Amino acid sequence: MKDTIIIGGGPAGMSAAIYLRRFRKDVTVIMKDCGALGKTEVVENYYGFNTIGGCELVKNGIEQAKKLGVEIIEDEVINLSFDGNYVVKTSNNEYISKTVLLATGSNRSKLRVKGFEEYVGSGISFCAICDGFFYKNKKIAIIGNGKYMEEELNVLKQYTNDILIFTNDTKIEVDVDFPVINSLIVELQGNEKLEKIITKDNEYFVDGIFVAMGTASASDFATKMGAEVSGNKIVVNAEHQTNIPGLYAAGDCIGGLLQISKAVSDGAVAATSINKYLRSLS
Amino acid sequence: MKDTIIIGGGPAGMSAAIYLRRFRKDVTVIMKDCGALGKTEVVENYYGFNTIGGCELVKNGIEQAKKLGVEIIEDEVINLSFDGNYVVKTSNNEYISKTVLLATGSNRSKLRVKGFEEYVGSGISFCAICDGFFYKNKKIAIIGNGKYMEEELNVLKQYTNDILIFTNDTKIEVDVDFPVINSLIVELQGNEKLEKIITKDNEYFVDGIFVAMGTASASDFATKMGAEVSGNKIVVNAEHQTNIPGLYAAGDCIGGLLQISKAVSDGAVAATSINKYLRSLS
Repeated sequence: MKDTIIIGGGPAGMSAAIYLRRFRKDVTVIMKDCGALGKTEVVENYYGFNTIGGCELVKNGIEQAKKLGVEIIEDEVINLSFDGNYVVKTSNNEYISKTVLLATGSNRSKLRVKGFEEYVGSGISFCAICDGFFYKNKKIAIIGNGKYMEEELNVLKQYTNDILIFTNDTKIEVDVDFPVINSLIVELQGNEKLEKIITKDNEYFVDGIFVAMGTASASDFATKMGAEVSGNKIVVNAEHQTNIPGLYAAGDCIGGLLQISKAVSDGAVAATSINKYLRSLS
Repeated sequence: MKDTIIIGGGPAGMSAAIYLRRFRKDVTVIMKDCGALGKTEVVENYYGFNTIGGCELVKNGIEQAKKLGVEIIEDEVINLSFDGNYVVKTSNNEYISKTVLLATGSNRSKLRVKGFEEYVGSGISFCAICDGFFYKNKKIAIIGNGKYMEEELNVLKQYTNDILIFTNDTKIEVDVDFPVINSLIVELQGNEKLEKIITKDNEYFVDGIFVAMGTASASDFATKMGAEVSGNKIVVNAEHQTNIPGLYAAGDCIGGLLQISKAVSDGAVAATSINKYLRSLS
């Protein structure tokens, strides 16, 4: 049983890990890659560094945390649940912990097609466990191609057998028992509610779409846990705790200034309050 | 006329300077030394650095800011006022600006003697311009030895000629026309209000004490400007603005986590809102 699992190894997550480790906590960071900073060639506004590459900074952080004894696992988190403790399911394993810090950045997978924004909440969902029930025996689409899609699919098939998988012009990476449509999605149509997916080659009538592209975002996990979310930002208090005890969030996923410095500070603040919370448990 | 003068060149002030300069603002940092970080031999919890010396980090920040074109002045700020613009008076000069960021850290000069905390607000003041009036023709003491003390003395002598200067076992650094007592202060006594200063060698009856030891702190300046202060912390909103338009504060002087990461983030947030404010002026 770990004290804290941190999902995301960017500035927010790793800063929190460094603090928690210094508080002598058993902390594990699960991360995939350099995240948003991987796309940042040069950072010049983070105090202390004249110039540093985005991914280089992330690697510095990993080094720094490892040196202190933080466990770092390269894996994709595909589910988060709570059964008295937090259960973090990855592509390859499952981990349990007393607390979880969400720090996966701000990118919620979006479809950049006409009609998408319009039908979010009116036929488009980001959370199978939250909304699957509303589609009992209905015709649904799930958009995605990897482990996270598979995880959501496993939930959805408890409610209906009428499922189409749209990979949106990408290659499917998992084995599935449902029809797979590879074609590029070009538009979503409907009236009050979503009704139709139009691809480059065809059109498909559906009652709902579940989006599970790429990896799950922090707000996806927060939503699954019943935590308050505003837009795609997780709502936290001044101590960076969500409304769910033991569940914290830091960095871009809670909004505010989307800057390294702010993420690093978020991590420090979250770690300090996680430490306080852990003390209250014992 | 400068866009912004930043008082203090630690992580909060310099981070703000870096951001403001990148917003193409004319920004000047006035600083004295490495501040609290000068006393920190090794920093290991600031994201991105395995290990770095406190003063080394401050010097990195100075380099980084200079490279971007931030003007850095080594001087002591002894007064802050507003006459339509902000007027920042230093030991050697005077500067005017549209906005000011206070980032001098958290240390308010205190006398570590018996009775001190008890009489703050009941005979002990930190602000000549705020409280001098209440001591018209009364007998007062001013504690300090340098330029800042001299500046406060210049205000106080408009109200009374009965002034004693206590250097508290330090050497006086300025020329003054009032009696100077060099002896170490050992206790302050009184009843409802402060009445007496006891030194190693003698005792002195006074109606009030003005503290102006060392350099003025951010909260001293905030108090002078009429900004809201709670304890010795400056009260700011989420944008790091005080209740005085154009006056901002960041870092340890606003409280919260007294950590580099939080100070750096404060600086970025303050700079972003100063930039917005400057845009609203033009």
